[in-house]
Amino acid sequence: MVENSAPAAPLAIVVLAAGKGTRMKSDLHKVLHPIAGRPMLDHLLASAEELAPRTQVVVAGHGREQLEQALGARATIAVQEPQLGTGHAVQQAQGALAGFAGDVLILYGDVPFVRPETMRAMIARLHEADSPAVVVLGFEPADPLQYGRILAHDDGRIAMMVEYKDATEEQRACRLCNSGLMAVNSADLFDLLGRVTNDNAQGEYYLVDIVNVATLDGRTCAVIRTDDPDEVGGINSRGELAEAEGRWQARRRRQAMVDGVTLIAPDTVFFAWDTQLGRDVTVEPNVVFGPGVTVADNVVIHAFSHLEGATLESGVSIGPYARLRPGAVLKAGSRIGNFVEMKNAVLGEGAKANHLTYLGDATVGAGANIGAGTITCNYDGYFKHRTVIGERAFIGSNSALVAPVSIGADAIVAAGSAVTRDVADGELRLVRGEQLVKPGWADRFHDAMKKKKADAKKSG
Amino acid sequence: MVENSAPAAPLAIVVLAAGKGTRMKSDLHKVLHPIAGRPMLDHLLASAEELAPRTQVVVAGHGREQLEQALGARATIAVQEPQLGTGHAVQQAQGALAGFAGDVLILYGDVPFVRPETMRAMIARLHEADSPAVVVLGFEPADPLQYGRILAHDDGRIAMMVEYKDATEEQRACRLCNSGLMAVNSADLFDLLGRVTNDNAQGEYYLVDIVNVATLDGRTCAVIRTDDPDEVGGINSRGELAEAEGRWQARRRRQAMVDGVTLIAPDTVFFAWDTQLGRDVTVEPNVVFGPGVTVADNVVIHAFSHLEGATLESGVSIGPYARLRPGAVLKAGSRIGNFVEMKNAVLGEGAKANHLTYLGDATVGAGANIGAGTITCNYDGYFKHRTVIGERAFIGSNSALVAPVSIGADAIVAAGSAVTRDVADGELRLVRGEQLVKPGWADRFHDAMKKKKADAKKSG
Amino acid sequence: MVENSAPAAPLAIVVLAAGKGTRMKSDLHKVLHPIAGRPMLDHLLASAEELAPRTQVVVAGHGREQLEQALGARATIAVQEPQLGTGHAVQQAQGALAGFAGDVLILYGDVPFVRPETMRAMIARLHEADSPAVVVLGFEPADPLQYGRILAHDDGRIAMMVEYKDATEEQRACRLCNSGLMAVNSADLFDLLGRVTNDNAQGEYYLVDIVNVATLDGRTCAVIRTDDPDEVGGINSRGELAEAEGRWQARRRRQAMVDGVTLIAPDTVFFAWDTQLGRDVTVEPNVVFGPGVTVADNVVIHAFSHLEGATLESGVSIGPYARLRPGAVLKAGSRIGNFVEMKNAVLGEGAKANHLTYLGDATVGAGANIGAGTITCNYDGYFKHRTVIGERAFIGSNSALVAPVSIGADAIVAAGSAVTRDVADGELRLVRGEQLVKPGWADRFHDAMKKKKADAKKSG
Repeated sequence: MVENSAPAAPLAIVVLAAGKGTRMKSDLHKVLHPIAGRPMLDHLLASAEELAPRTQVVVAGHGREQLEQALGARATIAVQEPQLGTGHAVQQAQGALAGFAGDVLILYGDVPFVRPETMRAMIARLHEADSPAVVVLGFEPADPLQYGRILAHDDGRIAMMVEYKDATEEQRACRLCNSGLMAVNSADLFDLLGRVTNDNAQGEYYLVDIVNVATLDGRTCAVIRTDDPDEVGGINSRGELAEAEGRWQARRRRQAMVDGVTLIAPDTVFFAWDTQLGRDVTVEPNVVFGPGVTVADNVVIHAFSHLEGATLESGVSIGPYARLRPGAVLKAGSRIGNFVEMKNAVLGEGAKANHLTYLGDATVGAGANIGAGTITCNYDGYFKHRTVIGERAFIGSNSALVAPVSIGADAIVAAGSAVTRDVADGELRLVRGEQLVKPGWADRFHDAMKKKKADAKKSG
Repeated sequence: MVENSAPAAPLAIVVLAAGKGTRMKSDLHKVLHPIAGRPMLDHLLASAEELAPRTQVVVAGHGREQLEQALGARATIAVQEPQLGTGHAVQQAQGALAGFAGDVLILYGDVPFVRPETMRAMIARLHEADSPAVVVLGFEPADPLQYGRILAHDDGRIAMMVEYKDATEEQRACRLCNSGLMAVNSADLFDLLGRVTNDNAQGEYYLVDIVNVATLDGRTCAVIRTDDPDEVGGINSRGELAEAEGRWQARRRRQAMVDGVTLIAPDTVFFAWDTQLGRDVTVEPNVVFGPGVTVADNVVIHAFSHLEGATLESGVSIGPYARLRPGAVLKAGSRIGNFVEMKNAVLGEGAKANHLTYLGDATVGAGANIGAGTITCNYDGYFKHRTVIGERAFIGSNSALVAPVSIGADAIVAAGSAVTRDVADGELRLVRGEQLVKPGWADRFHDAMKKKKADAKKSG
Repeated sequence: MVENSAPAAPLAIVVLAAGKGTRMKSDLHKVLHPIAGRPMLDHLLASAEELAPRTQVVVAGHGREQLEQALGARATIAVQEPQLGTGHAVQQAQGALAGFAGDVLILYGDVPFVRPETMRAMIARLHEADSPAVVVLGFEPADPLQYGRILAHDDGRIAMMVEYKDATEEQRACRLCNSGLMAVNSADLFDLLGRVTNDNAQGEYYLVDIVNVATLDGRTCAVIRTDDPDEVGGINSRGELAEAEGRWQARRRRQAMVDGVTLIAPDTVFFAWDTQLGRDVTVEPNVVFGPGVTVADNVVIHAFSHLEGATLESGVSIGPYARLRPGAVLKAGSRIGNFVEMKNAVLGEGAKANHLTYLGDATVGAGANIGAGTITCNYDGYFKHRTVIGERAFIGSNSALVAPVSIGADAIVAAGSAVTRDVADGELRLVRGEQLVKPGWADRFHDAMKKKKADAKKSG
C-alpha cells in the first residue's frame, strides 16, 4: 500500500473538527487534547504536511476560538454552524477552497495517527487508470460491530456503502469497515456533496453518501485498506485518549530499544513526541520526558527523573530525581544528582550539582562543584537575574547566590554563605555571622521544656 | 439482580473473621490489611451499612485485640475459640443477636468487595413468595475447580450443595459455585445450625450444611447469582491482596476518566478509597493519592506527586515531586513546585512555593512568593509552632523562618536569612553575617590541597 | 527432571560469548548488559557455580577486554578469532581444558537464566546406563518456527538434529527444539568436534553437528526437556533484554509476596538480584532497589524511594522520596523522610531526618532530630570528612555542618547555622548575623520596581 512519490496534483487537506466531544467532559476542544505532549490535531497536521499540501482547512464548530489560537496561520478555519452532518461539514470548506483545483484529502481531527504513507496511497489510488471518483480508506477491526460496511468487489471497486443499522445480516458479515477518510478531486467533491440529501432518521447530510451518489452516476469508487486498524481509531473519550497514548508510547519504546537504548522497565518510561535519544543511553524505571529533550550517546538517566526542553551531551549522568526544565544544557560528562532542579542554565563539562540544588538562569563553568543545598536566587519578585560561576569554582553547601552575581574561576564560597557581591578568581568568600556558644544552655532548655510538657499534660 | 428498595425486615450483619490468615505471613490481622488505603473489613462494613443494618457482629478468633481496636463501637465482637468451622463461627454470634428477630446476612471479612446491590438482592430473595429458608450467593468463576458446587433447578431452587472433593464427575461439570455468603431469617438460622453435625473428615461444623438440613426438612433454599465473580473473590495471600488492589484501582481509574479526568498513563496513578476529583483535572504519570484528598476543577498534578489529606482548589498546579501531607490546603490558582513538602498549611490564592521548600504549620497569604529552599522551622524538639506569612510577602531563597513568627504583608525577607522575630508589613528583614573576602586564598588552598593529595598518593 | 545430588565426575563449564551482539547496538559486550542490576554473564556463572565446577572457560571474540576485566580470575578466557561457528568456538576451549578429564557443560552467555537443577539433570543424564555421547537440552516454545528441531524417540534417544531451513514439513511439525545447551564427556567432545565439517551454506562449524557425527558412529545421544521454555530464551536485543528483566522481576515480586511482603502495586517495584526483605515489610508503589539492600521486619518503604547498598533495621520507615545510597545504615525505628539523601552514614535508633536533607559520611546518634534542610558538608573539593552527631542532639533547620565536625549529645544547633567548630554536649550553637530591620524599605522597593516594570513596558 506504500506509495512514496509526491502527489501528482495539488493537494488540499480538509480536517473535520466540529464535533462537540461531549464524552471528553472537557472545556478543552477534543482535538487539542495532547498525546505524547502534543495536541492530537498537531500529530495529524504534521503527518499531512509530509505530503506538502497547498492548503489545509479545519472545519470547526464548538470551541473554534481555541482552534484559531492553536492553529495560527497553519490552516484556514471554516465554520460549520449549525452542525448538520459530515457531508455538510465538508461543504463548509468550499469557500476556503475557492480557486483550488486538485485532490482533496478528508481527515478527522480525532483520528490523529493516520500515517503519511496511508494518505499517499489514498491519493495515488485516485490517479490510477480507472479514475475513481472517490477513494475510501477501509479497515478490518477486531470487532466490526458498530461500523458502517463497505461492500466491495475483489478488485477494490465499491459496490455500496451501508450503515450498520441499515445492513442485512449478510452485509454485516462483511468485515470491511468505513474509516470515514476519503480522497476526492475537488470538482467532484463539491458536485457530489451538492447532491447528497438529509433524507434519513437524523436529518443529517452524510459524507459517505457521496460514494453512493457517484456510484449511481456510474462512476467508479474504490476502497483501499489499511493493514493497521489502530491508525484509524477515533478518540472520543478520556479512556480512548489514554489508550491512544499507550499505543503511541509502546511504539516509541520499541523503537528506542531497537535504536540501542536500554529501558530497564519500558512500560514506566514516557516519551514526548520529539524526544531524541542517542546510542547506549540507559533509562532507569520511572522517567518522564516532556517535549524538547535531546540526549546524546552514553548518557545515564536514573530513576524518577523528569526532563523537558533539556539538552544532555555525551557521557552525562542525571538523577535519580533530577528535574530538568526548559533551557537546561548539560555539557559532556557533567552530572546532576538527586533533588536538583535546573532551568535555563548551562552546566559546564564535568561540572557537578549532586544534591538538593536549584540552578535557575545560571551558567556554571567546566569542572565546577556545586555543593548540596545551593540555591541560585534568580528572582527578586519583579525581574529574573543571572548567576555566572567560573570554571572549577567550589560553591559550599547551603549557599544562596543572589543574582545578578558572578563567582570567579577557582573561587571558593564557604558553606552557608549568602553571596550578594561578585567573587573574584581564586578568592574565598565567606558570609557568616558570629559563632555564639552557650555552654549548658541546651541542657537547661531541655529541662525547662520537659517541665513545660509535663505541666501541659497535668493541666490537659 | 439489582433491588434498591430498603430491606423490609430488621437486618443483622454477621461477618466471619476468625481465620488465621496463615498465608498472609503477617502479624496484622488479615481483614485489616488495607486496599486503596482502607482496611478490607472497612470496605465490607461500609457496603453493608448502606443497607442500614440494626446490628453488626464480627466473629473473631486470632488477633481479636486488633479487631477490637479497629472496630470500636462500629460492631459487636463475638469470640470463636476454638475454631470449629464456619457453622460454629456463625453460632458464636447467637449471644450478640439475642433479642434480634429479622434477616441475617452472613459475610466474610476477607471477601470485602461484595456490592450493596448484591446484598440487597439476597435479602429481597428471602422475602419472595416461596419463602426460602436460606438464600445462597452463587457465582460462576472462570476456573471452578476447587469450589463447592450448587446443584440447582432452573428456577433457582437448590437441589443440593456438594463439596468439590465429594462431587461426582457430573456434579463437577456444574459451574455454579458456592460463595459462602448467605441470607437467612434469624430464627431459621440458629435452628438449622443447631442441627448441623461435624461428622466429616475435618471434624468441623460447616455453614453450608444448613442448606442441606433445610432441604431435608422440605424447605426451599434458593441461589442467586452474581454477574461479577470478582466481587466474591477471597483474599488469602499478599498476592491476592495485590490483585484485589489492582482490580479496585482499574475500576477507579476508568471512572475518573469517564468523569472528565485525563490520566496520561492510567496504570501509574494510584487512588485512595475516598479520592475526589473535579472535571478537567490532569494527572501525569506516577502519582499516588493517599486518603483524604479533594481536587477541584482545572487542576494539574504533575508527575511523581504524592498527596494525602490535601485540598486543592480550582486552577491549582502542583509538582512534579510535590509532597502534600494532611492539612495542606491550596487555594485557587496557587502553585507548589518540585521537591516541596506541605503539611498542616494553607497556601493563599495565587501564592507560590516552587522549589525545595518545607511549609509546615504555616499560613501563607494570597500572592506571596516563597523562595527556593525556604524552611518553616515549626518544631523546637518539644512543641510545634506556627508561621504566618502575609499577602504578597516575598521570602528570599534559603531562608529559615523560626516559628512562632509572623511576616507582614508586602514584607521582604532577604535570601539566606534565619528570621526569629516578626517582620512588619512592608519591612525588609535581612539576617546576614559580615561578608569576608580573602583575595587569593582559594588559589593558595588549591595549591596546598593538590600537594596534600599528591603526598597522600606517594605515601599510600 | 530435578536431580540434586552432586555431579559424579569433575565438571568443566564452557560458556560461549564470542558473538557480536550486533542487534544490541551497544559498545558494551552483550553478556555484560545487566538484568536486575547484575551482568547476565554473572547470573549464568552463579548458577553454574552451584554445581562446583573444577574450571570455567568463557570463549570470547569481540570485546574480550571487557570480559577479561569483568571476569578477573573467575574464569579462563579462550579466544575465538576469527569466529567460524559454535563448534569452532567450543574447540577454542581445548587449550584451557588441557589435562581436564570429565564432564563438559556447554552454556551460552546470552542465555543467562538456565537453572542449576536443569544443568544437574543434563549431567546426570550423561551418566545413565545407556551412556549417551551427548545430552542436548530441548524445549517446546509456544512458537517453534525458527528453531532447529530435535527428532527423538519416545525414550529420549535422538534420531536426528535438523536445522529449520533443512527440515521437511513433517519434521517441522515436531515441536521439540534445540536450545544449543549440551553436556558431553571431554574426551568425546573434542573427538567429535574434530570430525565436524563446515560443509554448509555459511561455511561454519556447527556444534549441533556433534550429535549427528556421534549418531553415525552408532553412539546414543539423548535429549532432556525443560518444562520452562523461558530458561533457554536467548537475549539478542534490548527488547529481549527488557523482556528478560520483566520476567525476572515478576518472579521476584511473587516470591516477595509469598514471603510476607505487601506490594501495593507489584508491577511498579523493581528489585535487584540480591535484595533481602523481612516479613511484614510494606513497599508502596514506585520503589527501586539497587544492589546490596537488606530490609528487616516491619519496615515501611513509602512511594518513590530509591535504595542501594542500604541496611534497614526493624521498624524503620522511609520516604516517600527517600534516597539511600551505599553505606546507609538505618538503626531500629529510625526514620528518613522526603527528599532526604543518605550516603555512607548511620542513623541511630529512633533518630529522624524528615525533610530535604543530605547526610553524607555521618554518624547520627540515637534519638537525634535532624531539621529540615540540614546539609552535612562532607567534601572540601579534595577530601571527604566525617560529621558525628550525638544522641538526642537537635539540629535546627537549614543548618550546614561543615565536616570534620562533632555535635555533642543533647546539643542544639540553631536554625540556619553553619557550624564549623565542634559543639559540646548540652551546648547551644548559634551562627547568625546581625538582624537588620529596615522599616518601610520593602514598600519603597515595591514602588520603585513597579515603576521600572512599567517603564520597561513603555520603552519595550
